[in-house]
Amino acid sequence: MKNKRHIDLNCDIGESYGSWIMGNDAAILPYVSAVNIACGFHAGDPSVMMDTLALAARHDVHIGAHPGFQDLQGFGRRELQVTPREVYNLMVYQIGALMACARCQELSLRHVKPHGALYNLAARSASIADAIASAVYDVDPSLIIYGLSGSALTKAGLDKGLRVQHEVFADRTYQADGSLTPRTDANALIANEDDAVEQVLKLAKTGRVMTAQGTEVQLQVDTICLHGDNMQAVAFAMRIANALANDNINIG
Amino acid sequence: MKNKRHIDLNCDIGESYGSWIMGNDAAILPYVSAVNIACGFHAGDPSVMMDTLALAARHDVHIGAHPGFQDLQGFGRRELQVTPREVYNLMVYQIGALMACARCQELSLRHVKPHGALYNLAARSASIADAIASAVYDVDPSLIIYGLSGSALTKAGLDKGLRVQHEVFADRTYQADGSLTPRTDANALIANEDDAVEQVLKLAKTGRVMTAQGTEVQLQVDTICLHGDNMQAVAFAMRIANALANDNINIG
Amino acid sequence: MKNKRHIDLNCDIGESYGSWIMGNDAAILPYVSAVNIACGFHAGDPSVMMDTLALAARHDVHIGAHPGFQDLQGFGRRELQVTPREVYNLMVYQIGALMACARCQELSLRHVKPHGALYNLAARSASIADAIASAVYDVDPSLIIYGLSGSALTKAGLDKGLRVQHEVFADRTYQADGSLTPRTDANALIANEDDAVEQVLKLAKTGRVMTAQGTEVQLQVDTICLHGDNMQAVAFAMRIANALANDNINIG
Amino acid sequence: MKNKRHIDLNCDIGESYGSWIMGNDAAILPYVSAVNIACGFHAGDPSVMMDTLALAARHDVHIGAHPGFQDLQGFGRRELQVTPREVYNLMVYQIGALMACARCQELSLRHVKPHGALYNLAARSASIADAIASAVYDVDPSLIIYGLSGSALTKAGLDKGLRVQHEVFADRTYQADGSLTPRTDANALIANEDDAVEQVLKLAKTGRVMTAQGTEVQLQVDTICLHGDNMQAVAFAMRIANALANDNINIG
Repeated sequence: MKNKRHIDLNCDIGESYGSWIMGNDAAILPYVSAVNIACGFHAGDPSVMMDTLALAARHDVHIGAHPGFQDLQGFGRRELQVTPREVYNLMVYQIGALMACARCQELSLRHVKPHGALYNLAARSASIADAIASAVYDVDPSLIIYGLSGSALTKAGLDKGLRVQHEVFADRTYQADGSLTPRTDANALIANEDDAVEQVLKLAKTGRVMTAQGTEVQLQVDTICLHGDNMQAVAFAMRIANALANDNINIG
Repeated sequence: MKNKRHIDLNCDIGESYGSWIMGNDAAILPYVSAVNIACGFHAGDPSVMMDTLALAARHDVHIGAHPGFQDLQGFGRRELQVTPREVYNLMVYQIGALMACARCQELSLRHVKPHGALYNLAARSASIADAIASAVYDVDPSLIIYGLSGSALTKAGLDKGLRVQHEVFADRTYQADGSLTPRTDANALIANEDDAVEQVLKLAKTGRVMTAQGTEVQLQVDTICLHGDNMQAVAFAMRIANALANDNINIG
Repeated sequence: MKNKRHIDLNCDIGESYGSWIMGNDAAILPYVSAVNIACGFHAGDPSVMMDTLALAARHDVHIGAHPGFQDLQGFGRRELQVTPREVYNLMVYQIGALMACARCQELSLRHVKPHGALYNLAARSASIADAIASAVYDVDPSLIIYGLSGSALTKAGLDKGLRVQHEVFADRTYQADGSLTPRTDANALIANEDDAVEQVLKLAKTGRVMTAQGTEVQLQVDTICLHGDNMQAVAFAMRIANALANDNINIG
Repeated sequence: MKNKRHIDLNCDIGESYGSWIMGNDAAILPYVSAVNIACGFHAGDPSVMMDTLALAARHDVHIGAHPGFQDLQGFGRRELQVTPREVYNLMVYQIGALMACARCQELSLRHVKPHGALYNLAARSASIADAIASAVYDVDPSLIIYGLSGSALTKAGLDKGLRVQHEVFADRTYQADGSLTPRTDANALIANEDDAVEQVLKLAKTGRVMTAQGTEVQLQVDTICLHGDNMQAVAFAMRIANALANDNINIG
């Protein structure tokens, strides 16, 4: 198999709210090629969104919307009981809000990635995935959907005629069917940083990942999710970016 | 002075939230030519907004955004200490959100009217009015601003190159300088319905209104604000609409 | 079996929020013996709570707290992913808030009934039920827990040493094991009012209910939940109250 | 004038919310004798409150409630248009909530200090100050009110028969009438740390402070407000605590 010549690195930013600061957006930005900006439901607010867009523009990264459940207290990480219609509506609302903020700075959104519990729900529920794909399509059919590699969401996006980016994770372990090991399992996370770097390089170059069952599985790999929530995460992002560069894999 | 041949009647709708119903949107819609739809900060939510847009479309009225302060508890009626930049941002966010909801139904927004305490603040503060006019202009320069007749907001809109609609009120009394009598004053409201109808007709035909001081003042009159919060308000709206029609003044 | 001499009728009240009115609290109060007052998380706010307490006091009914999930948008009807510790904390917070409001009016709380999705979760999850019982006990061990008859919540309350009231419903159908027919089933609700009255009288007098399977099941029946969300519901409450009185069953 | 033998040092803590961390509560606690815990309206949530109470208990400091306006977005720093009755209600609600959380850990509240814009409003508005004093009194008349030294709030507390603590600030300048220089003035803050320490020592020992006008004014000095929002603030708190100890002034 021919090596991929490039890979997208994406990160969630703009997750501050009012007087509360979250993440190290300015520190992670040099190492990623795309950012997902919170839209005010689980994090972010109009002023945070405007400032985050300006910051992203200075770093010349692809800008995406990162809509989530309306649950500030739970940071959008708690699954809510929602109908597909409600999901459609909250997606349109949040994408539209960020899109207008971007337009006022002469910026454009390139992609949409659901956040947290909504991302996970969309990965496994066809009806929720369809609602998200329809919302993205109806707001702007040129937008790209970021979804878990091989999930219901990427399928729904493709079915709708949208471009999709299959996302993999540096620090999560995989199951033989290509799904993520649930966070409730003890071995869900890759604790060792060297192992995580190795997984990323292997995924970027071959699309293959060693599963928790000891077998390998082939994934579609378009983008890798990094974190910027603390300085250790930023250092890891830098290490990943450097390792990819050393292997002549372009980021972007 | 030649009689005006038409007048716009506008009403705030879409003010329900989650399980809470407010107003009689379906009942008031037959009597108005323009509606201002709440955008989720002081009232409304994504599903209410979508449903309200669909309802407005069925009645073929002009559709506008009705953004307000982020104060659900106070229904946007409490003035918040905000900078012009913060107002710019919250306006862009809310207009953008509703605009996307409209686009998904192949509808377009025609105007923007700030809500409650933001409306009042914009009527007297030039810097806040400028922030609102800039936000509207940057989101879409074809949008019309609805503001208190002769206020800082209509002036800011005109200065920005936007179209504006000067708004008057059926049930409020006026001061000699053309401003509204503050609600804290005992005679702020016109209690007698006949008097209110008379004021509307006089305003619609001549642009003049009898003030609390007993003198008349000339106002710019493009649109009249009606209410649909209870069935008495709806009955009053019907009476106003009929009275205008009897005087051969078209609504719209 | 000897007829019960009395039955408690309870109703959720105080569910308005800010400018939004919900329910007909004043209209339902004459027909119930106990009220459950929302505590500001899914409905209610400090001023609504104070006013509702005063209203309840004028009608001389038992006053209880009605804490729910922190989900205003979903009215507390959407199950949230919460730990028992989080449930303990939100229960203590809300009961404490209402308790202080009551104390300022020289009133006392008598019971606690979880709201909506929290009620349902507590009915089937032992760990959540235990968290609720512990919270109630730690705030005030003289408080009574209202829970679904024969549920995990009433069991947890008893295990903790608390008094409990087993609750039944007038307008819901039951399964052979004594559980409520899920709302997602077509026959979850009793549409015919006569049937509902008959079910209430039978439950009040014998503790027995005809199930969806056509068999009878014996329930513990201490209190019946009524609704006051519209005038039809109030009329039904009045009919139930009258029917019980006609059968010499005291309410309270 | 005889030296004071002791002074209270207080700090606002428990200002995290959900996934957002604010402040360095554990770092500041060794240097203060009293803490004011946010109650969920402008900051804090039930779980943050419970954890913060436990942390405070481990450091054996006096525990107080720190209620504020219901404005998470503005962190309670924006003045809201509220009636005295509304302020009474939000005070009772929040104090009651924290009181119940404390009781469950067998802790007691000792004092109440309004937060941010509510603190400032209560310092100058007699009717709001009276509402706060009445709320504190009605919840528990043994609670102490912390208010700006010589303000409407301390007066209202005393008038109600409550104990009060007159608060001064280490890093704010004062006017000849004993009021704080408004934050909008250029010289509102004491930038030089040595000057701030000197002001604290002089206040603690003599109750006198050099004003912006170059004259001295005599204040009632019971407690000094410190901040723990960053590590520099913590270092300053340590320095103040040490300076007081060196002057044989006990903290507490």
